[in-house]
Amino acid sequence: MIKHALPVTREADFAAWYQAVIAEADMAEDSGVRGCMVMRPWGYGIWERIQRLLDDRIRANGYDNTYFPLFIPLSYFEKEAEHVEGFAKEMAVVTHHRLIPDGKGGLMPDPAAKLEEPLIVRPTSETVIGAAFSRWVQSWRDLPVQINQWANVVRWEMRTRMFLRTAEFLWQEGHAAYASAEQAKAETMKGLELYRDFAETCCAMPVVAGEKPENERFPGAEETWSIEAMMQDGKALQAGTSHFLGTHFAEAQNIRFQNKEGVFEPANTISWGMSTRMIGGIIMTHGDDDGLRVPPRIAPWQVVIVPMLRDAPEDEPLIDYCRELQGQLSALTAFGEPLRVQLDLKPAKAAAKRWSWVKKGAPIVVEVGGRDMAGANVSVIRRDRLYREDGKLDSAVLSRSAFVDEAGGMLESIQTALHAEAKARLDANIHRDVADFAALETFFAESAKFPGWVEVQWSKPTGPALEQVEARLKALKLTLRNTPQDAAPADGACFFTGAPAVERVLIARAY
Amino acid sequence: MIKHALPVTREADFAAWYQAVIAEADMAEDSGVRGCMVMRPWGYGIWERIQRLLDDRIRANGYDNTYFPLFIPLSYFEKEAEHVEGFAKEMAVVTHHRLIPDGKGGLMPDPAAKLEEPLIVRPTSETVIGAAFSRWVQSWRDLPVQINQWANVVRWEMRTRMFLRTAEFLWQEGHAAYASAEQAKAETMKGLELYRDFAETCCAMPVVAGEKPENERFPGAEETWSIEAMMQDGKALQAGTSHFLGTHFAEAQNIRFQNKEGVFEPANTISWGMSTRMIGGIIMTHGDDDGLRVPPRIAPWQVVIVPMLRDAPEDEPLIDYCRELQGQLSALTAFGEPLRVQLDLKPAKAAAKRWSWVKKGAPIVVEVGGRDMAGANVSVIRRDRLYREDGKLDSAVLSRSAFVDEAGGMLESIQTALHAEAKARLDANIHRDVADFAALETFFAESAKFPGWVEVQWSKPTGPALEQVEARLKALKLTLRNTPQDAAPADGACFFTGAPAVERVLIARAY
Repeated sequence: MIKHALPVTREADFAAWYQAVIAEADMAEDSGVRGCMVMRPWGYGIWERIQRLLDDRIRANGYDNTYFPLFIPLSYFEKEAEHVEGFAKEMAVVTHHRLIPDGKGGLMPDPAAKLEEPLIVRPTSETVIGAAFSRWVQSWRDLPVQINQWANVVRWEMRTRMFLRTAEFLWQEGHAAYASAEQAKAETMKGLELYRDFAETCCAMPVVAGEKPENERFPGAEETWSIEAMMQDGKALQAGTSHFLGTHFAEAQNIRFQNKEGVFEPANTISWGMSTRMIGGIIMTHGDDDGLRVPPRIAPWQVVIVPMLRDAPEDEPLIDYCRELQGQLSALTAFGEPLRVQLDLKPAKAAAKRWSWVKKGAPIVVEVGGRDMAGANVSVIRRDRLYREDGKLDSAVLSRSAFVDEAGGMLESIQTALHAEAKARLDANIHRDVADFAALETFFAESAKFPGWVEVQWSKPTGPALEQVEARLKALKLTLRNTPQDAAPADGACFFTGAPAVERVLIARAY
Repeated sequence: MIKHALPVTREADFAAWYQAVIAEADMAEDSGVRGCMVMRPWGYGIWERIQRLLDDRIRANGYDNTYFPLFIPLSYFEKEAEHVEGFAKEMAVVTHHRLIPDGKGGLMPDPAAKLEEPLIVRPTSETVIGAAFSRWVQSWRDLPVQINQWANVVRWEMRTRMFLRTAEFLWQEGHAAYASAEQAKAETMKGLELYRDFAETCCAMPVVAGEKPENERFPGAEETWSIEAMMQDGKALQAGTSHFLGTHFAEAQNIRFQNKEGVFEPANTISWGMSTRMIGGIIMTHGDDDGLRVPPRIAPWQVVIVPMLRDAPEDEPLIDYCRELQGQLSALTAFGEPLRVQLDLKPAKAAAKRWSWVKKGAPIVVEVGGRDMAGANVSVIRRDRLYREDGKLDSAVLSRSAFVDEAGGMLESIQTALHAEAKARLDANIHRDVADFAALETFFAESAKFPGWVEVQWSKPTGPALEQVEARLKALKLTLRNTPQDAAPADGACFFTGAPAVERVLIARAY
């Protein structure tokens, strides 16, 4: 039996395994500040890759980057009732701007420096960006306005989990205003498609794009669309959302323009966001019992060279040999970018270094010992094929020049393989044969530990009827995820009400 | 006389001119949130260029990017007395994590959701990063630790000014821990040199690097070094600082390591930061009465092509002609990067577009009309040479192919010219011939409106003697800036005390 690198397997305890990946791959750690983590270089490096690739796509969509204030006056929120109701329970509130001695050797907020109006640490920026839009938009000529920001936001969650749900997290938020609802809706879908394509292409993460049921909408939105990814425990993770806000925020914030006929109309606004939560999704999509496997496009280092140093004079030519390899590889491109190649010269044992990179999930680890050098070879480990059939580590000896020739293609093949593996899992675990609610209950009670999702037809109930459906599901710890864009048309009765179905909807346990 | 593009000149009202550049170049605007600005695409785009170029240098220095929490528990600050004293007066304090209805139709912080310990919105991260260092550093093998973060920080300033002093600002902060004071000091100087080189090379901003007098040190530091730039009104702007913190933070936060002899020692730490303030410095270094002039290396767009459209069928071939030019230029490199070329197809008059790019300070604006196209030409405006001797706009007709051949070199020449102009101003305005305090008073009272700096020899007084010097200067609205690294050795008496001088120090009005 293979002795894996992590102290716990997915099968044994998925939640503990998740924490173990983060710890063993040095991605993040608890900061000591409630609900906030420290993102260490490997975790933050993956975020930087996500930023770079997503940012290119956002710009290509015609958005410009900007930066808005961290603090939002309370009165800005109060203008949009649904919006503030949705966030009031989890807002960090700044009330003072100075500290003074508390008379007991410590400090306390200075009562004389109490703010007249509390400031909210942004949980999202519709309100403060809407205030700017109301200044910028006067005429139809000023539309569309399309801006994006990369920022930190705070939502005071009671139960936090690294990457998936933290009090402070990093994200991008796109905000735009258009003249017509049609255009705004079309751009909402363009944002959704951008996320779908980014998740699949860059993160090798297959997703289902669709609309959220009304009770799961962003507070203040008319429509919320999401991409949902299947984690290896069968749960769903909402990995990005795109919101059609209609004229709700425009009415509340006076984003009005004079149309070509000279009549004033409210603009239609949209917003869409993706966050560091994506990294949690990447871990639970691609991780295995030896740690993380990072898709090459978003790996901070795609190839890591580990010379087997002996703290001896022979080390010098070995290091030179490795540097030469690093130079050759760095001159190549994969996915239209130069290869990112690290040479690990840390003063540690080669085996320890090998396993640290395996646990981090570097796509290719190249070990080079004296014998490799003598034969002009290298020993290559592909992170997606770590073991041979016989359970031994699959380290292939290749000539250095052959490896240089193959490295780019190998990275592309790893990217494809990771996607294919996750796609096969997603496809195999969406069940469309659950006949009724009793069968649903049985399915989730009896099926494998990691049951997957169930797709059913429904009549798209709203209001109290929808609440009833959600309550029944909640009793089974289940939720409605979204109504997939690409689902087959409805052709039967609603799974919940028996009324004629109008579309299909996904049911799953979720993060 | 030239009719300049800005409503106010530097000569007439420098402060109003500064605001006019920011407004007319669409760099930033007031956000409605006290002391916070909105960075619009052109202003934020310059920041993104600064980030990219500075980040490359920081990585090359062996630092890894990370991300630490926005909130720092008050108790973390209380551990280092000088540090907290330096920041307590300007800290934004989070006291509650939920809002509830206030009974008057609005919301208020929920008394039941008061935090047990107030959280400070980070004004700087030594304390929370130090807490992580204390976890990471156990043995001499764990050193050095070198990390950087790009983040927003908050200092509740009473008087704010866009870019120069805002309640929230963006920056990078480098933090490192070393085994010895010698190494930490050497690395402090390496950080300073990185800033000096970055300012000069990338921002075309000549600076004087030197040590701050003790009362101007970062709270908790043993030594603070700065780069100081001369603005066009003769005032000094501190544009980056590097701090040797000794063992102050390590003692307060228990950053200890076992040395090779097995004895526990506190580490020596350093930190260094540069912020969006730099953009204010770029405006006041390179701006002129027609707006900003952005050094090509940090310009979001280096070449902007403005076709003279007539809303007619002839526009099509003209746009094609311009796109072809954009493609040719984008395939070139300058400063080792591909050229950044924008084609401005906005529905506005060509002259309005030309002047909007002049005010923004795009290094090269290329206008293309029907006649240009017919002759296979383009009309080229260099932002550093806007007018001819006769006061007319200097728009040179070049063949398109000649311009493509010259564009990269032209950008490099603009970068050089902007630096040379600023360097000549700095060199001409450091006065070393002011004999005594009475002469100093006369000099600043009588000299030109924009007097520059005065360099004097001093005995480096400390404690009350230094305070006395600073008080005398303060009465003249003057401050000590730094003791320049490259100054001539002292060879006379102290300007202030008459005692033997040990070094030279700069006196200036400052931002």
